[in-house]
Amino acid sequence: MGRTSDARNKILDAAAALLEQRGYSALGVAEICATAGVPKGSFYYFFESKQALARTVIDEHWVTQRRQWEQVLGSTHDPLRRLRDLFEATTEVQRAGQQQAGLVVGCLFGNLALELSNQVEEIRRRLQEIFEEQIDLIERVVIEAKESGLAGPSVDTREAARSIVAQIEGRVLLAKLLNDPAQLETLWRNSLDLLQVPAQARGTTPATPVDR
Amino acid sequence: MGRTSDARNKILDAAAALLEQRGYSALGVAEICATAGVPKGSFYYFFESKQALARTVIDEHWVTQRRQWEQVLGSTHDPLRRLRDLFEATTEVQRAGQQQAGLVVGCLFGNLALELSNQVEEIRRRLQEIFEEQIDLIERVVIEAKESGLAGPSVDTREAARSIVAQIEGRVLLAKLLNDPAQLETLWRNSLDLLQVPAQARGTTPATPVDR
Repeated sequence: MGRTSDARNKILDAAAALLEQRGYSALGVAEICATAGVPKGSFYYFFESKQALARTVIDEHWVTQRRQWEQVLGSTHDPLRRLRDLFEATTEVQRAGQQQAGLVVGCLFGNLALELSNQVEEIRRRLQEIFEEQIDLIERVVIEAKESGLAGPSVDTREAARSIVAQIEGRVLLAKLLNDPAQLETLWRNSLDLLQVPAQARGTTPATPVDR
Repeated sequence: MGRTSDARNKILDAAAALLEQRGYSALGVAEICATAGVPKGSFYYFFESKQALARTVIDEHWVTQRRQWEQVLGSTHDPLRRLRDLFEATTEVQRAGQQQAGLVVGCLFGNLALELSNQVEEIRRRLQEIFEEQIDLIERVVIEAKESGLAGPSVDTREAARSIVAQIEGRVLLAKLLNDPAQLETLWRNSLDLLQVPAQARGTTPATPVDR
């Protein structure tokens, strides 16, 4: 029994790494099993198809990432500082990935959204839900920022949250294309602009990275 | 001779459509030839590999798109209006694609950047050049906007242009994921924020779409 769930975890770990590096279509079950070091029979014991595996990888990745987002965005810091902490954590993830693999791997959800939206309806629907949850989490902070006068009074909180998620995805695309995590460092300033934060409120939150 | 270059064009048209719909890894030369209605022998007469074909599709797509960008961004309108015209043209391209194929296909360059950056170095380098050219074209307009006082005096023109390109890519990702070209309609307002355009200057350029 212990050995069995080991095999499942090995398949999931190998698939997560390979999906981030190479995408969905370029991968075969045989390669995933070879990388995981498990026989192909084990694969079909746990997953009925490559699509079912990808769906599980996506779900597990979001469980982990949502926990991080909730922790950072739910802290006791002021709302703008919480957003900045999220961007720093996102940059850190890409830096760590680059140090480990030599390459910025980008965002698993963004990669699969562009590759699979028009091909695998189940994956598209799941990614739609995940992006909406990301927008929800950011919007809650934007609402707080607006209510406390840190964001501009005419900001549409839903659209601003959506634009911040779009800005993250666009900047991650540039970071991956250029293999340069520093592309993410402007997210903070961009968001102050998108939230129409007045000059005096920008000063209250330090613009340089904090010690961790 | 006429027939020969017909075959080349048929292959390029089929490959462009298939690459936009399904990406690179999911495609095979046999499928491209079948869609184009040309024998496989013709393919290898014109292209030494699928990679060489993709490179040609990218180059030709950028020749066409750059011409459109130069036309729109080089018009006699004021700089902010020219940016808005670019966003409207971009939205229109996605709407037309959706009407034709039933699905928002997204940005060929963005799709391939996320799929291939870490797999095909030649494609990565070419896409890096294309995105830098896009940023160049937008930066020229941002510089004009700044010099004429339409954009804020502290705007970093290069970073602002880069952020606008990132915002386009991020919004196109959402448009593709949701099969909803309206996701691009906020690009104009986002850019006014990113360029720190003062309230009085926002009023001089109508916020509603112009007649075409």
